[in-house]
Amino acid sequence: MSKTDVTTAPFAYDGLDRVIHEKARLGLLTSLMAHPKGLAFADLKQLCGLTDGNLSRHLQVLQEAGLVDVIKGYEGNRPHTTCRLTKSGRRRFLDYLAVLEQLVRDAASAAGKDEGRSRRLGIQPI
Amino acid sequence: MSKTDVTTAPFAYDGLDRVIHEKARLGLLTSLMAHPKGLAFADLKQLCGLTDGNLSRHLQVLQEAGLVDVIKGYEGNRPHTTCRLTKSGRRRFLDYLAVLEQLVRDAASAAGKDEGRSRRLGIQPI
Repeated sequence: MSKTDVTTAPFAYDGLDRVIHEKARLGLLTSLMAHPKGLAFADLKQLCGLTDGNLSRHLQVLQEAGLVDVIKGYEGNRPHTTCRLTKSGRRRFLDYLAVLEQLVRDAASAAGKDEGRSRRLGIQPI
Repeated sequence: MSKTDVTTAPFAYDGLDRVIHEKARLGLLTSLMAHPKGLAFADLKQLCGLTDGNLSRHLQVLQEAGLVDVIKGYEGNRPHTTCRLTKSGRRRFLDYLAVLEQLVRDAASAAGKDEGRSRRLGIQPI
């Protein structure tokens, strides 16, 4: 879809890049953001609660999009795969997060108008 | 997938309900949250920058999941469709938003560890 005018379509959230927005990939990128030197495949799998197959599939999507580097090597004589965010991956994820933060703010503000329900449910305007 | 233990898989974000998490549907739900009395199909379409076909398709998914009511009626003798969040839709969207807010907080905190890049790019820990 072409870039939508935010003044006429304030709820289009065009900045929510679909490669990043997928639920499992969001968890992967957040884990990798927290570990700038990279994470072993096994650690990433556990932190994100993914199976081997799912993790491989999502890493491939992120690698093809240039967001993540996957480094295959050996530890002793056992294969050892390490993953880390690329420089542009980090930047794109931060851009995405700014849009996500705006969405949370919009929704919290909208919820706040509605009879104070949001406060009772623990959503705080940010 | 079964519910993942947050202590062993802190980046699984199980609460990100896939029906809600889709990009266009997030915009729709945020618009409807901001208009608790409901919105006309044409207004919703404009606010979210969607085509007739896309809007119809996403509204159907949200309606089948019990998140949104779609009320078909007439204004004069022209068909007029109004959409609004259901009570449980509002509650589920607020639950989802609490998880999303946690994710933004986790990622902002992780980014903050990484040489102050986040601050330069305007991401504020919330």
